[in-house]
Amino acid sequence: MIVGVIGGGQLGRMMGLAGLPLGARFVFLDPDPDACARDVGEHLCADFDDAHALGELARRADVLTFDFENVPESSLASLQERVRVAPSASALGVSQDRRREKEIFRELGIPTAEFRLVDTIDGLASAIDAVGLPAVLKTRSLGYDGKGQAVICSQNEAAAAWDAIGAVPAILEAFVDFTREVSVIAARGSNGHTVIYPLCENVHRDGILRSTRPRPGDPASASAGEMISRLLDALDYVGVLTLELFDTCGGLVANEFAPRVHNSGHWTIEGARTSQFENHIRAIAGLPLGETSAVETCAMLNIVGAIPPAEEVLAVPGAHLHLYGKAPRPGRKVGHITIRSTNAGEVEQAVAALSALEGVG
Amino acid sequence: MIVGVIGGGQLGRMMGLAGLPLGARFVFLDPDPDACARDVGEHLCADFDDAHALGELARRADVLTFDFENVPESSLASLQERVRVAPSASALGVSQDRRREKEIFRELGIPTAEFRLVDTIDGLASAIDAVGLPAVLKTRSLGYDGKGQAVICSQNEAAAAWDAIGAVPAILEAFVDFTREVSVIAARGSNGHTVIYPLCENVHRDGILRSTRPRPGDPASASAGEMISRLLDALDYVGVLTLELFDTCGGLVANEFAPRVHNSGHWTIEGARTSQFENHIRAIAGLPLGETSAVETCAMLNIVGAIPPAEEVLAVPGAHLHLYGKAPRPGRKVGHITIRSTNAGEVEQAVAALSALEGVG
Repeated sequence: MIVGVIGGGQLGRMMGLAGLPLGARFVFLDPDPDACARDVGEHLCADFDDAHALGELARRADVLTFDFENVPESSLASLQERVRVAPSASALGVSQDRRREKEIFRELGIPTAEFRLVDTIDGLASAIDAVGLPAVLKTRSLGYDGKGQAVICSQNEAAAAWDAIGAVPAILEAFVDFTREVSVIAARGSNGHTVIYPLCENVHRDGILRSTRPRPGDPASASAGEMISRLLDALDYVGVLTLELFDTCGGLVANEFAPRVHNSGHWTIEGARTSQFENHIRAIAGLPLGETSAVETCAMLNIVGAIPPAEEVLAVPGAHLHLYGKAPRPGRKVGHITIRSTNAGEVEQAVAALSALEGVG
Repeated sequence: MIVGVIGGGQLGRMMGLAGLPLGARFVFLDPDPDACARDVGEHLCADFDDAHALGELARRADVLTFDFENVPESSLASLQERVRVAPSASALGVSQDRRREKEIFRELGIPTAEFRLVDTIDGLASAIDAVGLPAVLKTRSLGYDGKGQAVICSQNEAAAAWDAIGAVPAILEAFVDFTREVSVIAARGSNGHTVIYPLCENVHRDGILRSTRPRPGDPASASAGEMISRLLDALDYVGVLTLELFDTCGGLVANEFAPRVHNSGHWTIEGARTSQFENHIRAIAGLPLGETSAVETCAMLNIVGAIPPAEEVLAVPGAHLHLYGKAPRPGRKVGHITIRSTNAGEVEQAVAALSALEGVG
């Protein structure tokens, strides 16, 4: 089976590492000549909207997937007529449009922050009245260039925020007063069978995920599992999906979902009975899904901006190093470390030791 | 770091899958245009004694290793002057010569079957008198063409056996009356630090390994561990080595050693804290070695001659599929399955279910 992947970053690379043993081979479409997935498959070096290259990918692949969510929905929809695509273009489309994403959350009874759609500067003023402050103004569509977000703390910051996001269709969301950020990852097969990983507790710094700890048996697990199951069924989803949530005194509140494997699931390579990457490949290939329970206690630390000496990482008991073959730049994710042990105290000791290294956590 | 590998079969492929996350990249030398390791690295398609190709490999690699033991010792010795080679040419050489292999076992107090060197047909007659019958006549050097072995049950079969092996320098070994076949695998770093995997119990059929069960805490573990440690130190070995043994009423008897990762260690990918492939790469790269203990109860079943349907393999709880990307032919190893579970009964149930599939076990 040939798997075509739009995107050839570390997520594609780890799909390849998980999929080769299942008998799959890979072709990655990525405009970066150094796309790090090229170590585990063929590399079509072209833009994501290059019709010729997309056609070539569709011609060669038995199934087509993607490793990031900024693929144009229209590109994917046209490919869907020629080759099996999973997840579907419509599931991708929902994740790209904050309005549709929020609407589906509401329809499914998945709590979200208070929000209002904003189409004009005047609309922003009334949205602020409705939602309250502080609030965050976000462009409605992700777009290719990943246009940003602007925090608004007082009414007189509104105009600057509107300009900052480019005066485009937007959504104003109330700030969520959370106790922790969590995510839940699940895989759904084409027969509707769904498997759910343990809830993950995530720590961000400067907007970048730094560490994840899976929490099997967490009190919020059941609630998160119900939410992601409803979402997967509503989207008739095939593959791995990640739902990012805030945990609050009033329970879980959905932030957004990613129609793909996710950084907060990297611990599953060593830590779960079947990794998120393997289950994604199994799902899109129509194979039975694997068990998702945790093998032992785990933690995952990202490596950002600099690569620590491998000999120091691997000297820490229970540490497993994953480098992506990317050149380090400030703020760039270049690898991660998973720590696995029967002993939770040992995991935290290892986290402390590793966090002292350059680029770690 | 660039790792050059002489040989591009499934062992090289699994070294690549384990080494890429450590930041290594791979170049494989193999005359087979379909060498299955090409999915995880560059492929130099040339003969193993092609001086130009070996030179190219040495030029590009930071460290050089091999995935099978029939590399000419002289080729490796000449490369050693240009690039770091691990394991060393001399360790490889010992494994290629049954006389040197047996001598080192004797020197180190590692029990072997009764044996005599045989250089002529007359020498064979007196060797039979000394060793007893039944016995097995083996060519002394492995050679490139893997010349065979001949079983001798009575004196009048001696001449035919001598002809069958090609009338070359040989060794006559007494038959060993064993209760089971076992192997022990260990990795040794350049600083002499050694880590040892749990003893493995192996079942062969038609001369091909069919299944392996790691036996942590086996009564023979300590004895096997002492033997392999002595051997590694005597060879000043760097990398993974496998010692194949017979278990008898009188204790362990060494059969032979392989200077490489081994089929009986494939269970370590899911079943041990660090796989044999990762520890081999760590050792030859000068990195700290990882823990070798078993995570849970495991079994490994080889896939030989035919590929079972992936959907049936993966429907068995705890089963992990590893296909090598090789076309099936009778007697050819094309993959393996590891079963991992907290429950030993479940492992054996899975083994029974999987063994019913074509090509499995």
